[in-house]
Amino acid sequence: MLTDAQRAEIAESRAGANPTLRPVAPGAEAALYEARPVLETGFVRLVDYMGDDGSVVQGARVSYGKGTKSVSDDRNLVRYLMRHKHTTPFELCVAKFHIRAPIFVTRQWFRHRTASINEYSARYSVLEREFYFPRPEDMAAQSATNRQGRAESLPPDQAEVALALLRDDATRCYDHYLHLLNEDEEGRVIDESRTGLARELARMNLPINVMTQFYWQANLWNLLHFLKLRADPHAQMEIRAYADAMLSVVETWVPLVHEAFADYMRDAVAFSGPAMKVLRAMLDGEAPSQAESGLSKREWRELMEVLGRTA
Amino acid sequence: MLTDAQRAEIAESRAGANPTLRPVAPGAEAALYEARPVLETGFVRLVDYMGDDGSVVQGARVSYGKGTKSVSDDRNLVRYLMRHKHTTPFELCVAKFHIRAPIFVTRQWFRHRTASINEYSARYSVLEREFYFPRPEDMAAQSATNRQGRAESLPPDQAEVALALLRDDATRCYDHYLHLLNEDEEGRVIDESRTGLARELARMNLPINVMTQFYWQANLWNLLHFLKLRADPHAQMEIRAYADAMLSVVETWVPLVHEAFADYMRDAVAFSGPAMKVLRAMLDGEAPSQAESGLSKREWRELMEVLGRTA
Amino acid sequence: MLTDAQRAEIAESRAGANPTLRPVAPGAEAALYEARPVLETGFVRLVDYMGDDGSVVQGARVSYGKGTKSVSDDRNLVRYLMRHKHTTPFELCVAKFHIRAPIFVTRQWFRHRTASINEYSARYSVLEREFYFPRPEDMAAQSATNRQGRAESLPPDQAEVALALLRDDATRCYDHYLHLLNEDEEGRVIDESRTGLARELARMNLPINVMTQFYWQANLWNLLHFLKLRADPHAQMEIRAYADAMLSVVETWVPLVHEAFADYMRDAVAFSGPAMKVLRAMLDGEAPSQAESGLSKREWRELMEVLGRTA
Amino acid sequence: MLTDAQRAEIAESRAGANPTLRPVAPGAEAALYEARPVLETGFVRLVDYMGDDGSVVQGARVSYGKGTKSVSDDRNLVRYLMRHKHTTPFELCVAKFHIRAPIFVTRQWFRHRTASINEYSARYSVLEREFYFPRPEDMAAQSATNRQGRAESLPPDQAEVALALLRDDATRCYDHYLHLLNEDEEGRVIDESRTGLARELARMNLPINVMTQFYWQANLWNLLHFLKLRADPHAQMEIRAYADAMLSVVETWVPLVHEAFADYMRDAVAFSGPAMKVLRAMLDGEAPSQAESGLSKREWRELMEVLGRTA
Repeated sequence: MLTDAQRAEIAESRAGANPTLRPVAPGAEAALYEARPVLETGFVRLVDYMGDDGSVVQGARVSYGKGTKSVSDDRNLVRYLMRHKHTTPFELCVAKFHIRAPIFVTRQWFRHRTASINEYSARYSVLEREFYFPRPEDMAAQSATNRQGRAESLPPDQAEVALALLRDDATRCYDHYLHLLNEDEEGRVIDESRTGLARELARMNLPINVMTQFYWQANLWNLLHFLKLRADPHAQMEIRAYADAMLSVVETWVPLVHEAFADYMRDAVAFSGPAMKVLRAMLDGEAPSQAESGLSKREWRELMEVLGRTA
Repeated sequence: MLTDAQRAEIAESRAGANPTLRPVAPGAEAALYEARPVLETGFVRLVDYMGDDGSVVQGARVSYGKGTKSVSDDRNLVRYLMRHKHTTPFELCVAKFHIRAPIFVTRQWFRHRTASINEYSARYSVLEREFYFPRPEDMAAQSATNRQGRAESLPPDQAEVALALLRDDATRCYDHYLHLLNEDEEGRVIDESRTGLARELARMNLPINVMTQFYWQANLWNLLHFLKLRADPHAQMEIRAYADAMLSVVETWVPLVHEAFADYMRDAVAFSGPAMKVLRAMLDGEAPSQAESGLSKREWRELMEVLGRTA
Repeated sequence: MLTDAQRAEIAESRAGANPTLRPVAPGAEAALYEARPVLETGFVRLVDYMGDDGSVVQGARVSYGKGTKSVSDDRNLVRYLMRHKHTTPFELCVAKFHIRAPIFVTRQWFRHRTASINEYSARYSVLEREFYFPRPEDMAAQSATNRQGRAESLPPDQAEVALALLRDDATRCYDHYLHLLNEDEEGRVIDESRTGLARELARMNLPINVMTQFYWQANLWNLLHFLKLRADPHAQMEIRAYADAMLSVVETWVPLVHEAFADYMRDAVAFSGPAMKVLRAMLDGEAPSQAESGLSKREWRELMEVLGRTA
Repeated sequence: MLTDAQRAEIAESRAGANPTLRPVAPGAEAALYEARPVLETGFVRLVDYMGDDGSVVQGARVSYGKGTKSVSDDRNLVRYLMRHKHTTPFELCVAKFHIRAPIFVTRQWFRHRTASINEYSARYSVLEREFYFPRPEDMAAQSATNRQGRAESLPPDQAEVALALLRDDATRCYDHYLHLLNEDEEGRVIDESRTGLARELARMNLPINVMTQFYWQANLWNLLHFLKLRADPHAQMEIRAYADAMLSVVETWVPLVHEAFADYMRDAVAFSGPAMKVLRAMLDGEAPSQAESGLSKREWRELMEVLGRTA
């Protein structure tokens, strides 16, 4: 996944600690610069951060204020803030990641607008011959019930054939990309008698599973919001793999915030007004029916599922 | 560019006017729903708007205020606001566009974060067999002096060969996309004995010149900022074609704002502090030199160019 | 609340309808320009809007797409989008309000960052002698249990004394404001021998219950998010009065969205992961205890309350 | 300005350095936690930061990229980015400040929407008896030519009278605030027979020169944009004092960025399209006239001023 030069750069970055007066999060320090592999050819690595669990607490207490002294401890305060969606103290922590991911994943990723992004420019530089290909077991069929979901894996032989096709097309397209550039993988001119097409044009021949790289920086609240949506079973599996890797960084960096996130965001379930009526009736020993509930059949089914009832 | 069904939908949208008490901009009404062709297979069309030149003026005057009565007329006020970058009144106008563009163009586009986007989902639906291919004269060589620019066109024969290659790869990739989906262009199963790959996976075989569609909505200030950057000679020609089409909509919708934009943003030139010293010296009849100016050679050359001097 | 000039301006704005090809929302047209009184001296009025229920639906369907045809009807689609927090189609509607409110209310209001604001400038113009004073029954005691809440009303005699004090101080401060400006309420110089203090300085003598005016524009999603937080019992009563007035505008403008908002946002209840375990146990006929639940006493009490159980 | 407890807290924060693998900016470390006095009773202090000059450079180079190796050095790259408004690499640095400022200053401040704010809550806690009063020499007259500006100082005797009035009103309003709360400055009940008004209501009696406190966090680009507008001669003097203090922190934290900011943003002058024509004519030895220039008289005068010409 990494070249020797990249490994050396990471080792060098991790070699020299310097003193700082800022809050230092031991878990984040341990994670810094290390590349966590994602989807075989991709990675996620934390390359800078600001703040720790204590920064959230201090933001809530607004330094020198009088009113917050009574809150018993940091953990309780963090949980209180998360439970009541008092989001601004979480904004006081920031994480910067270096990511390598396929373009189709970045297309979902960059729809999140409250982040800072610096991406490798294919106008400026030549993209590397790196692609994402699913593992055979991830070559899943289209779901029949969920228009934007997948079902079980393809039969192994069909998966292999499909994968070969993906690999073939990627190889041919990349070969032609270099041909259009009139440049080989070391940047040397291939044929002096031909003129290379501009990089910004030649790249249009590349499929959207080609890998790109970028810095992605967000404050902790926006990061958690991203993770809530993208580390979720409804997210496409590929972006979920990145979200899971980032969530594990969050866990080691700000453990109190991570715990509160898990309880009050990740595992939380929202009940609509009509669903609350059904729920209260059930607790009163009644047997409410879908027909009278105001819920659609689909909502009713989902409600019963989440309550662990048979629909 | 448009199917018959689309033409009919546009005609229907334009058929029935309804009364409104809101500000109505005649130029925008004339433009509404009509598709302006861009890059052969793409288009831009205005599909909704809010406000007009008068809305900017009224925002600046903050209704019922006393202090703004003296400003002589609307045009002067709009120009004053633009000149001094008093941006909030421009936010009170909003435009919503429907766009068809290649994916690589949307990748530049969606980096602008202060807009609302609803894009056609390739997880949910099958992408159409529509691609962007440059005209032969737009098949430009890589610039030798500007790493992210292009130079003159390729020799015609080389352009044709390169275009054929782009077309071939797009065709093959799209054919394989359908094959992976196990679905023909009418959505019928191709081979009952095979399982179709999930749409969210099969799409990864498509090159980034495949066309996508989206709604893009921004307030007038963010729209102008977008146009300043993307209708600029440094922008990639393809996105510039879209920006130019949108700018012509702005011109017809809010003519006073457009005129002020042209004078104070599009045609404006910024001089750095050190450049201002050079400029004042020149006006004093001195002959300042690059060496003593504090400007780099490149800045000096650019300064002389913009001043219409020979460097 | 309104001067004659303002009433005339509103009547004039409502007099002349013009034809438009845009979506027209009858409920919004009926509400346009009319001032809804809030807090005696304040108001909320819708002064422009874009889109209707159908715009949300159309955004979700992304014009010309194939995949969304199966959704049975608009109401179901709107509810589906709201239930699953698919927020971008709601951004395609926009509302612009004209508001008069006390400064301390705007200080809470303007913390919402995703809106466009044009406020009356007290640097540029003189603020009017308009203040917010609570009704006697709204002069509430500090809550003993909720640090940022209020309890029952003051005893009537104490409320009257306190109100008199608020009125006195406001009157004196405003008198001195004019004195510092050396300008009477018609803008005439009071004393030719004195120099008026700059408006941007003189205003510092005004208390934060002085009224200001502003345009506030937001897309429908950000508006609903604002209303979720500010039309909530935990919000300060004064800003809630504004939120309630705006919510009634939303109801008449986009009735399907309003209904979905009420069911899935306003009346929705979120249960944490640990609370879900308690809930499932209760439905299984068990009697889970706070001690074993992992919930704090406070959370337990709140959970039982929302479930309609005695704690 | 600071209490003994605050001084002790600062000293403690500065006592213990810890090792970090993150970039460390020596100038920022030297500034951390220290309070810079502003407006007598206010202060600015840097309480956390992320990144340094090198982070901007690295962001531009997008780690592992090939195309940026040729840029000669960091300073040139920073200047290039600033000159061409390539803003995203500057977003990779973040600063967090703790501020004490009068409410009327925060009202201008918080209009900048791309920042994170945690402010002392006057619903939750009691505001301290701290106000901003201008120095006598800052008690300026209203400008006759600039509606939102100030002119020379008031005559000293008038300034003293006006200041006494400001002080009097602030004292009385604060006394009454405590009376309404029925609480003295140590938080003890004043009169057991009276009920204290809720804090969220009592505060409405305070004038807008009362001091508040907040954390304000922004990335470096948004911070520079804020400083461009607020450390500018057109900004109100009081907020400019804060901006100047923050700019001096930026200078010590990221010296290369600060230098580039000074040259390309702070000291830069923008010429409109029509002004460029005038300028080029002047350099050609012509004597263009206002009448023929298309510039308004005001623009012409401003242009001649900035060019050091007599109008």
